[in-house]
Amino acid sequence: MTARRDPKDKTPGATQPSVESFLEYFPGSRKVYVSGVLHPDVRVPFREVELSATRDRRGTQTPNEPVRLYDTAGPYTDPSQKVDPEKGIPPLRLRWIEARGDTERVPGRPVSPLDNGYYDQKEMEQARANREVPSVHRQHPVRRAKSGRRVTQLHYARRGIITPEMEFAAIRENLGLAGQPQEELARDSLWFQHPGQAWGAAIPREITPEFVRQEIARGRAILPCNINHPESEPMLIGRNFRVKVNANIGNSAVASSIREEVEKMIWAVVWGADTVMDLSTGKDIHQIREWILRNCPVPVGTVPIYQAVEKVGGKPEELTWELYRDTLIEQAEQGVDYFTIHAGVRLAFLPWTVGRRCGIVSRGGSIMAKWCLAHHQENFLYKHFHEICEILSQYDVAISLGDGLRPGSIADANDRAQLAELQTLGELTKIAWDHDVQVMIEGPGHIPMHLIRENMELELRDCHEAPFYTLGPLVTDIAPGYDHIASAIGAALIAWHGCAMLCYVTPKEHLGLPNKEDVKNGVIAYRIAAHAADLAKGFPKTQMWDNALSKARFEFRWEDQFRLSVDPLLARSYHDESLPQEAAKVAHFCSMCGPQFCAMRITEEVREEAAKQGRQVAEIVVQGLAQKAKEFRESGGEIYQ
Amino acid sequence: MTARRDPKDKTPGATQPSVESFLEYFPGSRKVYVSGVLHPDVRVPFREVELSATRDRRGTQTPNEPVRLYDTAGPYTDPSQKVDPEKGIPPLRLRWIEARGDTERVPGRPVSPLDNGYYDQKEMEQARANREVPSVHRQHPVRRAKSGRRVTQLHYARRGIITPEMEFAAIRENLGLAGQPQEELARDSLWFQHPGQAWGAAIPREITPEFVRQEIARGRAILPCNINHPESEPMLIGRNFRVKVNANIGNSAVASSIREEVEKMIWAVVWGADTVMDLSTGKDIHQIREWILRNCPVPVGTVPIYQAVEKVGGKPEELTWELYRDTLIEQAEQGVDYFTIHAGVRLAFLPWTVGRRCGIVSRGGSIMAKWCLAHHQENFLYKHFHEICEILSQYDVAISLGDGLRPGSIADANDRAQLAELQTLGELTKIAWDHDVQVMIEGPGHIPMHLIRENMELELRDCHEAPFYTLGPLVTDIAPGYDHIASAIGAALIAWHGCAMLCYVTPKEHLGLPNKEDVKNGVIAYRIAAHAADLAKGFPKTQMWDNALSKARFEFRWEDQFRLSVDPLLARSYHDESLPQEAAKVAHFCSMCGPQFCAMRITEEVREEAAKQGRQVAEIVVQGLAQKAKEFRESGGEIYQ
Repeated sequence: MTARRDPKDKTPGATQPSVESFLEYFPGSRKVYVSGVLHPDVRVPFREVELSATRDRRGTQTPNEPVRLYDTAGPYTDPSQKVDPEKGIPPLRLRWIEARGDTERVPGRPVSPLDNGYYDQKEMEQARANREVPSVHRQHPVRRAKSGRRVTQLHYARRGIITPEMEFAAIRENLGLAGQPQEELARDSLWFQHPGQAWGAAIPREITPEFVRQEIARGRAILPCNINHPESEPMLIGRNFRVKVNANIGNSAVASSIREEVEKMIWAVVWGADTVMDLSTGKDIHQIREWILRNCPVPVGTVPIYQAVEKVGGKPEELTWELYRDTLIEQAEQGVDYFTIHAGVRLAFLPWTVGRRCGIVSRGGSIMAKWCLAHHQENFLYKHFHEICEILSQYDVAISLGDGLRPGSIADANDRAQLAELQTLGELTKIAWDHDVQVMIEGPGHIPMHLIRENMELELRDCHEAPFYTLGPLVTDIAPGYDHIASAIGAALIAWHGCAMLCYVTPKEHLGLPNKEDVKNGVIAYRIAAHAADLAKGFPKTQMWDNALSKARFEFRWEDQFRLSVDPLLARSYHDESLPQEAAKVAHFCSMCGPQFCAMRITEEVREEAAKQGRQVAEIVVQGLAQKAKEFRESGGEIYQ
Repeated sequence: MTARRDPKDKTPGATQPSVESFLEYFPGSRKVYVSGVLHPDVRVPFREVELSATRDRRGTQTPNEPVRLYDTAGPYTDPSQKVDPEKGIPPLRLRWIEARGDTERVPGRPVSPLDNGYYDQKEMEQARANREVPSVHRQHPVRRAKSGRRVTQLHYARRGIITPEMEFAAIRENLGLAGQPQEELARDSLWFQHPGQAWGAAIPREITPEFVRQEIARGRAILPCNINHPESEPMLIGRNFRVKVNANIGNSAVASSIREEVEKMIWAVVWGADTVMDLSTGKDIHQIREWILRNCPVPVGTVPIYQAVEKVGGKPEELTWELYRDTLIEQAEQGVDYFTIHAGVRLAFLPWTVGRRCGIVSRGGSIMAKWCLAHHQENFLYKHFHEICEILSQYDVAISLGDGLRPGSIADANDRAQLAELQTLGELTKIAWDHDVQVMIEGPGHIPMHLIRENMELELRDCHEAPFYTLGPLVTDIAPGYDHIASAIGAALIAWHGCAMLCYVTPKEHLGLPNKEDVKNGVIAYRIAAHAADLAKGFPKTQMWDNALSKARFEFRWEDQFRLSVDPLLARSYHDESLPQEAAKVAHFCSMCGPQFCAMRITEEVREEAAKQGRQVAEIVVQGLAQKAKEFRESGGEIYQ
């Protein structure tokens, strides 16, 4: 029952991944857990980076506290766990779900060959004989709400219930550091933080479980957690929480295997993806999704229309509501945490896309557009939206309202089609909320910088503050091969203005399917953008990471600087290209300037010079120099008339 | 007399670079020249990208006009030129300089061993015997203003003179497309452009030579062009012109050779650097600068204090005004186009840097700080600023007022030391202008996004709209190894707000000296940031590049999409990783979605479906669908109460 592997495959990914192999990327980091108070069985994971002591010239050592970081890696960086994709990871939330008593085990919808894109069993077996396909994953027990119940976090929040999921997520946002000092601190404190400018967001000093409940209750945040994906660790998507990053994975008809996709998923969460979307197309979609869900510690999103259209041989015009509905149930039972649903692609908006530079670039949007045109009927997702919500409320699948008409080029940004769809998404948001279904809103795409703020403001207004979730946006079209950079600029900007989650863009965007390295580059570029936005918003306990790294840098603690980097091994390898010697790791310079020219070294000497004279550095410099400066001025030192 | 090369060096850089080797990176591009009108011997180079025709399903072909791009590569991409670093490139501006009749040939200051960091001839010869050092470059004729004359572009501009340099730069900014349509065009026009939001910049629809003159005259732009660097092609740095990018090169005591640095310089301009700064330290500084200047088609900047401090054995406290002054003359005679001068690091500001997270991180700033502290005297650059200006006005060396107290960490951003220095730079700007010396202002550094706008606004206010030239800024400290990305975010933002030139940051920042690949990655990340800012400002004739690329993308003209990319070969290689076959270059899909799922392909089909019925696409879709939608609404199609 293990995944088959091509024995000739010599790529690093071909070896069974292990916790050790992931931890190698984060030297000096260890997993720590913080327990809940309301729910003592809540254990929230963090990554703590251990640091060496600061050592002055006299040899006196002052210890540096470890730096605690938000951690998306799940069991993959916990040495007490084993990685075995066949068994999957532990169902962390199962006992909480069961304890609520509002769900029940159901037999579940039978899986048919069509779910994997085959007409019948025979075709499936023949096709799989020639492909590298893992066997069917262990049977996953299916749960559903008891008749008449809604089991969403929004439902609980509205009733005043703080679930274990909410407390988990609150502790996570807060880095488990309630009560730590936060602000009005001197600039030289490790906890100093700029106040930030949050554009009207309402970020409290401390994220409490009750605050999380309130934000979910009013629809300003979602906590995507399908009852059939108990493996996922609760997290929040909302403007008043940390900015999140989604990584898209998934094979396509022309590339990639299931094993590769599961590995990409694991790497994505290890590098910092807060959610992953499985955008697989082609054969074996059901299968790959099962493998991903059973192994994924973060919420998983999908676009169910991709699978539905596979079931009708790739012909959008043959889609029916019944087939789509059945696909929703199939995926809800598997445990998908949020569905992108392109219900805002209305028939009446399509004429506005014809004159566009790039027409419709959303896959789901184009499928629905084709269906609408072929039938001259309104989008069936729009027509059946109430029914969709009714289904999703029984599993707690959140809706990500797809922007099927998002602009695919700078020229098309903020045009009539895009903004009309956005208003429709606002209408649909209210309907979802009527059903206690959690909702976020997808956004563009390709937007020049000066139109990004308008996007964010219109979304907040038209969609009643439901969380915004954007793809980039790319701020120019000219950068294929570097679109992770072109879009990280837009992503940082829109997140600062209030976007809650950023869908990454990899260097392969517009050119091909990302490989593991592309996934890493995309996730890291977006972690940088998200962190920059949190800093700019003044989100509590954000700047401490920057402060700690800069302190290590200024004190020439090279190993600590590497450890605190977003990509420790890369940072070290860049340093070592010029100065590979071990001695250089404690040297008070680097190859950029060499020993004579290092500004920080000279500054250090300036401080030391003062210290030698037996007084406090600050004291002597401030007093001594201020005195000298005063004398200078008094002696007519102003040389310019 | 050719550069010595290590015959064992097998790196690609070890082969003699040729025009062919550069052109390979830009398939389908050709060099074109546009002539001046006021000065007919002005020939402004551009890169034109030739495109294939658009072909519809019936086989009808519609040609696509070539796309003309701003071109910094100089002779290195002109097939009529040869690359020979020993001979240098043609002295393009020499006849204009001579024609003005205000300069004269002078013997020039004798070059001493100390200029290269050696105490005497013997030490130099001994040291060089063990190093790879090219021989002395051909004798460069030195010019200086005739007695009592000032020969700066600011001087001419104030007298109402439009120099050939100004006309050259005007045509360049305008892409030589005066009279082309610009705005109020339909979205589907190739020349459509969003109006932009320029934060109070005064960008005209067309950049005329007279506008260039006015901007230089009022100090809002500089045109750095030392009379001793006639090889450089005139370009503008100013808020009302295209955003420019500087690339830092230069060896340090521990790494890199002259040959490598010359090669990095050439690659930097080929990839799009508008200026380069030679920040070499260590031995042979004079020598390397000569090689760079004689081969560099863009303005070259330096930080003269680096060489001055080498001359005193790396001991800042031993610096003297006389030695610095001599170094300024040495470099002005060689042809350096702008000097970074840290004249704003005043003694009285130093106490404010002591409590900083990262103290002083500017090399020049820390050198001056150490000098000030050692002598308890005011910065000699500040005291002698009038004399400095008097010297520079005789060569037209522009001043880049260094921000020696720029923040080196997020914690230190916009602090008292930084902002006090900025005000001093404003004072000094007025003094430079009194001497007809062109000035720009250097800026940070490490700044969280929400404080970037304040930086720009204070600079405009305190420095009287002199052009701002910033290093990044980095919007977080956590990204060593990815600082080109962390800083491209800040760079795009500050450029949009009015910053005139962006000093690139490479992935090696904080870790080591950049190699050729790092230079490329830095330049390209910054070209993306600069272009994104130009788009957001609504700079004329900017979006056309995006439009042309998106049109190629939407029409599945893959080769054209690659050609129009910032890095054509990389874009193609990413595409080919998944779909290497030649047929895929004309396929109407890529590996991201595969053939069934391509949104753009489906959109194309939607358009075609309408076309089949014998009417215009827009017509049938607009009329037909509007009618259907109307019927739908009239039939009570509104399904929600």
